[in-house]
Amino acid sequence: MMRSLRALGEDRLLAQILPQLKQNSRVVAGAGDDCAVVKFREAKEWLLLKTDCVVEAIHFVAGSSARAVGWKAMMRALSDFAAMSGVPQFALISLVIAGKRRVRWVVDLYRGLNQAARYLDVAIVGGETSDTDGPTAVVVSVSGFVEANRCILRSGGKANDDLFVTGRLGGAIRQRHLNFVARIEEARWLTANFKVHAMMDLSDGLGADLPRLARASKLSFSIDERALPLSKSCTIQEAISDGEDYELLFAISRRDRARLERTWRKKFPKLPLTRIGQFNQQSVINNQQLMSGYVHFRQRR
Amino acid sequence: MMRSLRALGEDRLLAQILPQLKQNSRVVAGAGDDCAVVKFREAKEWLLLKTDCVVEAIHFVAGSSARAVGWKAMMRALSDFAAMSGVPQFALISLVIAGKRRVRWVVDLYRGLNQAARYLDVAIVGGETSDTDGPTAVVVSVSGFVEANRCILRSGGKANDDLFVTGRLGGAIRQRHLNFVARIEEARWLTANFKVHAMMDLSDGLGADLPRLARASKLSFSIDERALPLSKSCTIQEAISDGEDYELLFAISRRDRARLERTWRKKFPKLPLTRIGQFNQQSVINNQQLMSGYVHFRQRR
Repeated sequence: MMRSLRALGEDRLLAQILPQLKQNSRVVAGAGDDCAVVKFREAKEWLLLKTDCVVEAIHFVAGSSARAVGWKAMMRALSDFAAMSGVPQFALISLVIAGKRRVRWVVDLYRGLNQAARYLDVAIVGGETSDTDGPTAVVVSVSGFVEANRCILRSGGKANDDLFVTGRLGGAIRQRHLNFVARIEEARWLTANFKVHAMMDLSDGLGADLPRLARASKLSFSIDERALPLSKSCTIQEAISDGEDYELLFAISRRDRARLERTWRKKFPKLPLTRIGQFNQQSVINNQQLMSGYVHFRQRR
Repeated sequence: MMRSLRALGEDRLLAQILPQLKQNSRVVAGAGDDCAVVKFREAKEWLLLKTDCVVEAIHFVAGSSARAVGWKAMMRALSDFAAMSGVPQFALISLVIAGKRRVRWVVDLYRGLNQAARYLDVAIVGGETSDTDGPTAVVVSVSGFVEANRCILRSGGKANDDLFVTGRLGGAIRQRHLNFVARIEEARWLTANFKVHAMMDLSDGLGADLPRLARASKLSFSIDERALPLSKSCTIQEAISDGEDYELLFAISRRDRARLERTWRKKFPKLPLTRIGQFNQQSVINNQQLMSGYVHFRQRR
């Protein structure tokens, strides 16, 4: 039992621990989806909760613009609200930072946090700092709401659903990962107009995230790799594995396809919406395909 | 403008930044109190939000029992709920930890987090980990509720109020800081039976925290140091400055004194409740006393 976290995989560790924690009747969806979903007192809407962390040397390099780091830290958490079609409202900041760092850096960090928050009508209602002798970590905790009939879990996908992604995939690390906007508006429009079955945001890359969506829905998938919406000068492989796209991936009945594509173009003329494949019944054959033909679609380390 | 965080003081920095962030009509109390207080949709009760962090080498030493670290990390956040007379309900964990650390440590950490959560009927509804090459940090984000007429801010103190503390002060660092229980039950009993004017939990020591309560209430205070409830073998100075007591400090009308002391003894026979002094009108003379006679009552660096 001297196993290291890295050997086990931190995701797999939490996947073991978290479901064992005692939940209660107020918890609609706990660990494993993009946000936690709970009932708050007698409110009609559900309360959504999410915490997310960016760490120096892992999610940003030491020389990054503090404003850009703040923007990214906030938008990453808000992107998980988009994934559930939620409305983020309140944010708390927990900053772990060495006392020798410059005041200017923290002021700029908060400028970025606040710009991102205000852009999506979120109020930063509290913050605290802790000293450290190590790398800086910025933890953003967000709460908000979603109407019960518009809350989209990962688990609702159905066989033969179309799979769509917004925007373009790959290459985010060059620039976009520091200045993206969480797809709140798009997600809210989708659930106001369509019955979306399952949805998530793409943070680790389609190759890692799509299998998660499929597993949660107990389905397999097939993808037309040539249909993937590639970012400028990206290869298919990069679009699958680069990560940090923060685009929406969702499953919807093929009966809605024509109306969705038509109305989307009208509503969001500058943002591509692309059908990349479909969900299938889970079967031995499909699972084998998943493991062999889509070996790059397995979870990255 | 090359000033370091340590030179300015992290608290003072946030005190500058946070109040400038745009709030909105849903925010009852933002940064500066123990929890953020917001309105959630049409719910009668207010939503309370708190995030709190413990860092290796700052809040616990590398060799600490992981279970005890987890217990402390959770209870610290819950103690802020006690300070507002709130009921904590849901917790999210954000863990920043090196991949080389042992799985066993994280399993034990979650055991401690979960034991503390269950002890006060809180559900851990999500968790995530981030890699780091530095010290471990455990961030706990908690949400819960408080009835509008039972929410106790720091700012409600009145001149001539009695000041009370629960328990005993000082010496927590020897043991109690790793196994304390947040005073949720006591706080809820207080607000069910009395009109408490202002309250907070003692985390940085009476000498740092009481001036904060007084400032928030725009009052000064006088303390009978000989009345302080000292922990076993602690000096007055230690009781004032050790910190990590996680006891309640509150202000209440002196008209309630007799009934409070009598009913408290009956309800919590094992937990001392001690009147340590009172709030006074803020005046030049009192302020001078504050700065000279109570020099150890100034905020520690």
